[in-house]
Formats: sequence, C-alpha cells, structure tokens
Amino acid sequence: MGYVVVFQPSGRRGIVDEGKTLLAAARELGVDIESPCGGAHSCGKCKVKIEEGFFEKIGIESKASNLSPLTDAEKEKLGDYELADNYRLACCAEVRGNVLVYLPDESRGARQVIRKAGKHREIAVEPAVGSYYIEMAPATLEDQTDDFTRIRNAVAEKYGLKGIEHIDYPVVPGISQTVRAADWKVTAAVWKGKEIIDVFPGMKENLWGIAVDVGSTSVAAYLCNLRTGESPTVKSMMNPQITYGEDILSRITYALRNEGGLEKLSKAIIKGINFLVQAVTEEAGLSPREIVDMVLVGNTAMHHLFLAINPEYIGRVPFIPALKQGVDFKARDLGININKGAYIHWLPIEAGFIGADNVAALIAEEPYNQDQMVLLIDIGTNGEIVFGNREKLFSASCATGPALEGAQITFGMRAAPGAVEAVRIDPRTKEPEFKVIGQDDWFKKGDEPLAKGICGSGIIDAIAEMFKAGIIDSSGRINKEIDSPRIRKGVDGKMEYVLCYADETAMRNDITVTQGDVRAVQLAKAAMYCGAEYLIEKYGGKKPEKIVLAGAFGSYINKENAMVIGMIPDCNLENVYAVGNAAGDGAKLALLSMKKRQEAEEVARRVQFIETAAEPDYQTRFARALSLPHKSHEFPNLKHIFFGEGYNKSCI
Amino acid sequence: MGYVVVFQPSGRRGIVDEGKTLLAAARELGVDIESPCGGAHSCGKCKVKIEEGFFEKIGIESKASNLSPLTDAEKEKLGDYELADNYRLACCAEVRGNVLVYLPDESRGARQVIRKAGKHREIAVEPAVGSYYIEMAPATLEDQTDDFTRIRNAVAEKYGLKGIEHIDYPVVPGISQTVRAADWKVTAAVWKGKEIIDVFPGMKENLWGIAVDVGSTSVAAYLCNLRTGESPTVKSMMNPQITYGEDILSRITYALRNEGGLEKLSKAIIKGINFLVQAVTEEAGLSPREIVDMVLVGNTAMHHLFLAINPEYIGRVPFIPALKQGVDFKARDLGININKGAYIHWLPIEAGFIGADNVAALIAEEPYNQDQMVLLIDIGTNGEIVFGNREKLFSASCATGPALEGAQITFGMRAAPGAVEAVRIDPRTKEPEFKVIGQDDWFKKGDEPLAKGICGSGIIDAIAEMFKAGIIDSSGRINKEIDSPRIRKGVDGKMEYVLCYADETAMRNDITVTQGDVRAVQLAKAAMYCGAEYLIEKYGGKKPEKIVLAGAFGSYINKENAMVIGMIPDCNLENVYAVGNAAGDGAKLALLSMKKRQEAEEVARRVQFIETAAEPDYQTRFARALSLPHKSHEFPNLKHIFFGEGYNKSCI
Repeated sequence: MGYVVVFQPSGRRGIVDEGKTLLAAARELGVDIESPCGGAHSCGKCKVKIEEGFFEKIGIESKASNLSPLTDAEKEKLGDYELADNYRLACCAEVRGNVLVYLPDESRGARQVIRKAGKHREIAVEPAVGSYYIEMAPATLEDQTDDFTRIRNAVAEKYGLKGIEHIDYPVVPGISQTVRAADWKVTAAVWKGKEIIDVFPGMKENLWGIAVDVGSTSVAAYLCNLRTGESPTVKSMMNPQITYGEDILSRITYALRNEGGLEKLSKAIIKGINFLVQAVTEEAGLSPREIVDMVLVGNTAMHHLFLAINPEYIGRVPFIPALKQGVDFKARDLGININKGAYIHWLPIEAGFIGADNVAALIAEEPYNQDQMVLLIDIGTNGEIVFGNREKLFSASCATGPALEGAQITFGMRAAPGAVEAVRIDPRTKEPEFKVIGQDDWFKKGDEPLAKGICGSGIIDAIAEMFKAGIIDSSGRINKEIDSPRIRKGVDGKMEYVLCYADETAMRNDITVTQGDVRAVQLAKAAMYCGAEYLIEKYGGKKPEKIVLAGAFGSYINKENAMVIGMIPDCNLENVYAVGNAAGDGAKLALLSMKKRQEAEEVARRVQFIETAAEPDYQTRFARALSLPHKSHEFPNLKHIFFGEGYNKSCI
Repeated sequence: MGYVVVFQPSGRRGIVDEGKTLLAAARELGVDIESPCGGAHSCGKCKVKIEEGFFEKIGIESKASNLSPLTDAEKEKLGDYELADNYRLACCAEVRGNVLVYLPDESRGARQVIRKAGKHREIAVEPAVGSYYIEMAPATLEDQTDDFTRIRNAVAEKYGLKGIEHIDYPVVPGISQTVRAADWKVTAAVWKGKEIIDVFPGMKENLWGIAVDVGSTSVAAYLCNLRTGESPTVKSMMNPQITYGEDILSRITYALRNEGGLEKLSKAIIKGINFLVQAVTEEAGLSPREIVDMVLVGNTAMHHLFLAINPEYIGRVPFIPALKQGVDFKARDLGININKGAYIHWLPIEAGFIGADNVAALIAEEPYNQDQMVLLIDIGTNGEIVFGNREKLFSASCATGPALEGAQITFGMRAAPGAVEAVRIDPRTKEPEFKVIGQDDWFKKGDEPLAKGICGSGIIDAIAEMFKAGIIDSSGRINKEIDSPRIRKGVDGKMEYVLCYADETAMRNDITVTQGDVRAVQLAKAAMYCGAEYLIEKYGGKKPEKIVLAGAFGSYINKENAMVIGMIPDCNLENVYAVGNAAGDGAKLALLSMKKRQEAEEVARRVQFIETAAEPDYQTRFARALSLPHKSHEFPNLKHIFFGEGYNKSCI
C-alpha cells in the first residue's frame, strides 16, 4: 500500500510504500537529507518537521496514524521544543499514511557554497572524498568475511556505493585493530567512490580539505569543511622559493644552473605548504590526518617546480609543459603532510604560460556559461587574459613584467604600509594628492609622513593622472614646458614629476615619477593591451561586455585609470569589476566539487591559447599600443574624462 | 580491391585491402606477430616467410607482383640467407595480390609458457605491464601538446590502447628530458592499460617481472621475461624472519608481544626480498628499474607479516584476515626496490589459514577446470588441502605440525645432505636399508658413513616400512616381542627401532625411530587424513580420482608409503603425483597473465573453506584416524602390499 509523501520546500512528491522511513522516501524522491550516520539513528541530523497545517490539503486525517510512533532514539535526539513542534528523525519515522514534510535548512544535504567575491554563485558540495559511517555485524566463524570486504559491503549496502575496488596501503596495517576497537562502527573515507583512503573509529562527521593557491610571491591555504563547504581558516605566507629568485625566470634559471637546484626549489615550496597545513590545522584544532584532500593551483612554473619537473622546456620555444591535465598524486609521494592516504589534485594547466591558477579563475568566473563577451584579466608578473563566452574562449599570456606591480619603478614597492596606493592631480595646478597604505584618508599637511614608495595601483594612478593633467602626452613624454616646481630634471638628466616632497615622506626624500617609470608602465600596459586586442580579433572583433580583474592586485587599482592609460580595452565602467583572488576561489570550488574539477578539465582543453608573440605583426602592434591611450581605438566610455574641464585634450 | 591473405601455421585467412602491410593484415585477422617497434621498420622482429610452394593453391600467380618491392629497411634487417629464402618484414611488405605467409616461431607474438612440472600446460603471455615503443613528432609552436599527452596519443594511435588515464608521479619529473634526449622515440611501460609507470628512452624490447614465493621457511624469487614468458633465473634464501621464530605461531607471538615486533618481521622479509631482487637482477645483468612488476604468494601469516598487518586476528577465533582479495600496492610503499612506478600484486587469500600460496597452487593445477575429482595437498607445517572439480571446491587447513617435515622427531632434520630420505625394511629379518641425501645409491657397507638424521620423507618411509614389517601394529605400538637387536628399550624407557648403527653414521651415534616419533607422525598424518575425509564427505562422498602433492616436500616422499601410513586417502597410485612447487608456478603464471590473476580472484571466492576443527565429531574422527592405516576405511589400492609375502597381516 502506498501513500503520498510531499517534501517542502522543494515540493517533491511521490507515492511511497507503507513502512518505508522518511529518509528512504526522500532518497527515492531525490530529496537530499543530511544523514552522516546513514540512517543508524545515532547522529540526530536528519530532523524534519511534520507540517500539520497542510494535512487537510493532501487528505491526511490525523498526525498520529500517518507515521510510526516516536522511537526512543528520537526522544533522545530531539529537544522538548522540537518534539512539541512536530519534529521527527527521518530515519526513524515510517510512512503509514499521507504526509507533508518540511526540511529545515540544517537538515538539507548537499550543502551549497556561496562565493563572496564577485558575483554570488552557489555550487553543490560533492567532494572527491566522502565519509561513510557504518555499523557492521562482528565477524564470526559462520561469517569469516575479511575486514576490508566487510567494510566495503556495509558501505555498498547502506549508501548504494558499489564501486569501491581498492584500499590504500597505509590503511591496511591497522584496519583490523581499528574496526574491533571501535566495536565495528567506523567511518570510511572513500576517494572518488572507489578507494578507501582511511578508516576512522566511530562516526566522523567532518572531513576536511585544503585548497592551496601557490603564487610566485605568496602562497595561501584555505581550510574547507568537505561536508558543509565552510572555509573557517585561511593562512598565507611568502613563497619560500623567493630565496632562490624573486621572479619566475630567475627561479627557473636557478633550477637549471645549480646542482640540486630543482630539488631545493621543490622542497622549499613543499616545506612551506606543510607549514601552512600545520598552521591551519592547529588554528582549527584539527590533526593532519583529518585533512583528506588537497587541491593546488598556480602558474605553470609553480606547477613544475612543485612537482620537481625540469622547467627547462616551459621556458623556451616551443614552451612545452611535461603534463597539462589535472593530476592526482598521493600526498605522501610529494612529502605533503596530510592524511597518509590522501591525494593532492593539481588543476590542469592550459598552456606553457597559462597555468592552473588561470583555470581556477575560469571555473570561479565561468565565462563559458555566459552569453556576454567576458574579458578576464589576471595581472601579475605575467598578465594572463582570457576572452570569450559560452561559444568560444581564447587565452594569451602577456609578458607585462613586474612594473604593474610596482617593481622596476624608481620608487616602486610592494602594496605594504607606506606605499602610495592612490593619486589625484589637479589638472590646473598640477598639484597632486595621494593616499598611503596605513592611513585612512588622503594625506593632508600635518599628518604623520608615512610614504615610502609607490605600489602598483599608485603608479597606474600617477601615470593616468599625469596624462589627464597634461603633464605627459600620449607618447609618454613629460612636458618640460609646464611651469611647475614639481616638473624638473632628475639626476639622470631626464624629466621627472615630484609626487611627494621630502617632508611628506617617511625617508625625508622626494618621491618622484621619472620618465623611465612612465616608459616601464607603457611597456607593461602595451603588452597587456596587445594581448587583449589579439584575442578580441580572434573572436571576430566583438567588444568585451564585461571585464573581470582577477588577483589581489585587481582589487586595488582604479579601474578608470587603468583604462585611461590603455591597459584594458574600452568597456562600460560599470561592467569592469575586480573579483579578488579568483584563483583561490577556484581552488576551493575544485576542492568541494568534483563537477568543478570536471569543468576545469573541459575548459582547459577548450580554451584556445594564442601565442601572441608569434603573430607576424606583433612588433608593429606593440609599438602602437605604447601610446596613452591607444590612438587607433576609440574609448567612448572615457569621453567624459577627456572632454571634462581643464583636462588634456591633445590626446584625443 | 582486396586479396586473400593466409597465415600459416594457424591457417587464418581473410580478404585484405590492397596496400595494407602484412603486419596490419595480421592484426586484422587476429594473428599475433612479434613487433616490439610497433611497425616502425626499426626492430626487424616481424620476419615472415612468403611460401611459394602453395601459391598455386590459392591462385597466386607470381611472387613479385603480389607484394610491394623490398625496402631498404628489409635489406638492412634481413640476412642474405633470409632474403634468398623469401623472408620479408611484415611491417614493410604491402599486399598487392593473394599471399600465403608463414610465421616462423620467433616471430609469433603472445608467446606461450609451458609448465614443466605436473601436467604440461600452456598459457598466453598477457602481463599486467606492457611495453609500447613509439616514435613521436617533436613538439612545435603549432603543436604544443604536453609530453604526457603526446605519449598517450602516440600509444593510442599506434596500439589502439586508449585507456591510459594516469601517469605515476616518479615518472613525471624526468619525462621531458627523457623524451627529448631520446629524440622523441621512447618505450612506455603501461600498467593494466591505464597507467604509465615508466618511460624508457628508445626501444625497450624486454621488461621483466619477479614472482616471489614467500614460504615460512624459504623464499624463492623467479625472474620472468614479460614478453617471452621465459624464466632464466631463480634465487632462494631462508626466510630471514626465522630469527624471530622458527614457525608461524612463534613469529605471530613475537609480533604481538614485542614493541615494534611487527615492523621488525615485516622489514626482515622485505629486506630479504630486496636481497633476492638484487641477486636475480645481477645474475641476469639487469637493473632494478627493468623489473616493472612483482607477484607474491605465501600463506596468510606471511601475507600479513609482509604487509605489516597486525596478525592477531588471523591467529584466534574466528580467524579473520584484514583483507583477502588480491591487492596491487606500489612497490615503493612497501620499500621493495624495483622500478619506482611498479606495483606488487599479492594473490588473494582464501581464508584464515588458506593463503595465497594455496590459491597459486590452484591456478597452476586448475582443479576447477577438471571433471575428475582432484585432491590437492600441500604439505607443510600446515597441511592445506583442496578437494573437488569444476563443479565445486572445498578447502581445509590441517594443523599437522612440523613432524612430516622431519621436525619434532628425535633424529629429525631438514632435507639436507646427511638426511636419511628413504628406508626399506625386510619384513622377515627386520633389517633396514637406507638412502642418504648426498649419496647416489642405497647405503652399503664400506660406503662413507654420512647419515646425520632423518628428514620428512625418511620418517614416513621408516614408519610405513616398520608397519609393513610388523615392527609396529596399527595402533602404532612398537612390538617388543620381536627378536631383533634393532628393537630395544631407549633411554626414556620406551621402545625404539635402530635405523642406523653408530658406524653407519657421521656422528658415530645410533639413529633410532622412537615410540615418540611414531606418535608424532601419527598425530600429523591423522590431522591431514581427517581434513581430507571431511572434504570428501562435504562433496557427497566421491572418492579422489587424482591426488596432487604440491610443495617441494611432496616431490620427495614415497607416495605408496604415504598411503600406507594413512596420510592420504586411497587412490590408484598411478594417479598420485607430485607437482613440485605449485605455489611458485602459480605465482609465475599470475605474473605473466592477467587472466590467471582473474582466475585467482574467482577461485579464491569460489572455494568453500571448511573449519574442520569446528565440526562436532572432530575429536572422535581424529582419534580414529590415528590408526595405521585407518581401519574403518578400505585401501583397495594397497591390497598387494598387505597381502604380499611376509608382510604384517594383523592390521588388515
């Protein structure tokens, strides 16, 4: 005999056989109910509310007769208030008539994760490592099934998971002891539904993973709960490889030129990650054994150096990586100190210079699911750009050099306290205002002078403002005709602009923007712009409808000024936005969702990489792109600026 | 346009498109031709002979027009004699008319392995690790495929092997270098068609594996060529765990009672196997990297101690192993020094006391493919027996103790030089003759006296002969009424029989068979007999039609005398035979054939294990089985002995 069972809020309904539990009914109807103990009546997580108010509508006569009576387990697990409010445990209550069931938020399985940065987006939590709590009948002379098979059978029976074929070696030596000490109640951690990578005594509700963003400058580790998707802790550090070289190229050179250099670089980053693992686990009160999965992202050089792969061939024509596809290696094979049976997963890389970090940004931003033309820009020592939409995607790597990050600038520095991070210049007086990291407001006379240098966003601002104020022309030349004490000849005999006078700085020295600095930024922005231009052309000339700036740096720059200097192509400024560390977000998503890993493989294969430097007219285009802004292109979205009062009109 | 192509000696024929090579034709028609270079014209192994004599029969007009002309590669690879004899390379010669092709022995692929011991049997060589030689187009800016994918694609294209999904980590760091240094010509070692475990520069024709029989007393390692199936080298050693305990039980006790005891036992056997690996590879002039697979067999205790599994639960009721199924673990996870990417495979175990060695013996002897009722007996410290045929199989483990191997016998010793290995006693005079290991013939007056003790086969002979000569009765009691100087009272006050006088021995001491020795052998043989009796009963009382004695020991015993003392049930003596180390043979077969591994899994699951000691009437039956021979059973095949002249008739 069957009855109508309806689950709210999803509204799923169906006919369910008499005597089935609500948990079984939910599974039948495709409704996910949280049930870490798998229906053993022991976790109390599958609370549901029986909705009396709607009983009449579906013809339920009385509450008492439509479900089996309250069990002892329910009386123990449910509070008095819950009992009074018609709560039941779905694993206990059996269907004996029509019922309308409401699932409170906390009982819903397959939790959603919401990304905070950029556009809010939800994904279902379906990690590579699942936890399966089982209670087994003890072995007897009549049932001499071995321990591994007994666990496997119990998981298959209770969860319908029939694909387990393998048990990882480190689990094997202690398995018999664990099972017996825990009175045949254990939680199996199963990787991709096929390999038991650990067996924990008793019920282990939460397993954890760590997503690692291996940047060439800094490394960040995000602890994530593989059940709820929550990420309570993040720790970051400088990439310890910096000892062997500030930038990627110098590290590759170190690896190739020094005996054992590659091993040193690989060991350094692995040691660093182990340090972060320790830091996040200690803060969260966890043991390394509880970390059962790790996802890593980073550029191709970081990928190769981490894996101790000879990086020679990614650094020279024709730029071939040893392997591109996403890989699962045992953490222990790399010396990563998490659970002994855990895998690490590197997201795939796209091409020689477009790494797993870019792929991570792609799965976070999903341009491949959008109709709009999206330009995704990750600004770093290399600018990685992707352009396209659900139809096609093109990518390029632009050798921007580190100028846009504030390096190779006379007074350049990292975005740290004391760095000038924003600049405004009055186009009439040519007098600047500036903002320093560590001070809440723009610098005013009388404030403590903290300025020490200029960071990336500061130099972009400075150049753009100098341009708008007519201090430099569109070729980048500083106009020495201007009558201002701030425009003067520097020690190298070339012109410079004084941004901060000595008494406004911490070092009591003038901070200037030199002709050389302007050139350095021009070279960098031209490389970036050029790359974008090629991709736009490959797609048939469609303009970007949305520009996404990824990476920490993108969050700090003034997007209008980035457009003013011609670093990014024209776009409605409302549709230009920074999404923060999209690579880190993508790493977390891949940690929490097998579907996202699948997407990563697909998009990495789909994106067409354009080797821009190999294009025949690259030199011509690059030279043209040096102008501020690029004259051969319109910037209709900037017209208000160039035609505003007092602004430089020469450049239009 | 198609032509008839016939391959001899198989006789396979079919219509082949014009222009196809003979190699391609062979693949189409399911004929295996040896082709390590995969048709790259570089190995010269795919030699075939064009049979002119039969041309007319299939309508071939002239040799010249029916195949493409000789190529330079053929002129280089084929000797003058071969060229004159109409040899061609199958990868070069293209079909242009009907041809009849003869495959010489050495060109036939998928070599057969013939077992020497027992019945001759052939299997096709299809190892877990295959070698795939490929020649790739170098990477270019136009084709920036990564190295791993390039290899995978090349293997897929050339060999149709499309399932490769994974590359093992140790291969990764060096892959780019290997590929380029070898000019894009490499050999990929692929495990089970899905994982690249190594990449060798150039063409690597032969890959190797080692089959290891881990006995509690001795360990043997067989080197096998994974292409040809040949096993050129075998090395053996004492099991180094003997330091921690002579028998299994004492080793388990050591492991459980001593801090770090389990690790010591595990490390000891692994170190021992590494020593054997070194020995066989050195003898064959190979490096450990060339050993890409290993199969291990052994009893359940050896299995657990090797894997460092707590052996507590296999030693006590209800005797549960941690895991039974065949497992593949990375050799490096266990510290086995072969190829870094290689797996080790343990064959499955059947039950608590019936180990992987028994499964190996089963796949070597294949009772599951026979109509006859087969009784397979492996005599060791435990006697493992299997009874049945293609319908059903039952197994039991009999706690025989070590008496049948010569231990716990007053003058017992291992089967080594100086051991009495065979005995005859004149039933009238009660005078013995004996044969000593190390002497070609029976001992005669005047020979150098070498005897030091009695080994297993010697003690079985001695007891059987004493019984036949009436020196002991069927209860095992030594008859003190017999008038012979050899029958006397020993130092313990009990009767004994003098087998060798002091001047016939190396130690100048009498060697005797004591009343206690007779009892020890009775206990052992009763355990064995009882087990067989239960299995025969479980199968409905069908008598064994064939008795197979496995293990080195089985090769030395006098099978008639084994039946005389009632150790094995009655059977036509012609159908009782020893097959030597069937466990070692099975390990080799599993190394060379994935199909055999599959069979092992199936048979391990199929065999029904009978816990004989748990049978209610075990004590009664065991007591009854102590008699020589078991009175309640007929031994029709022994009638000629008991009714022969001068023999003891009291026992019939």
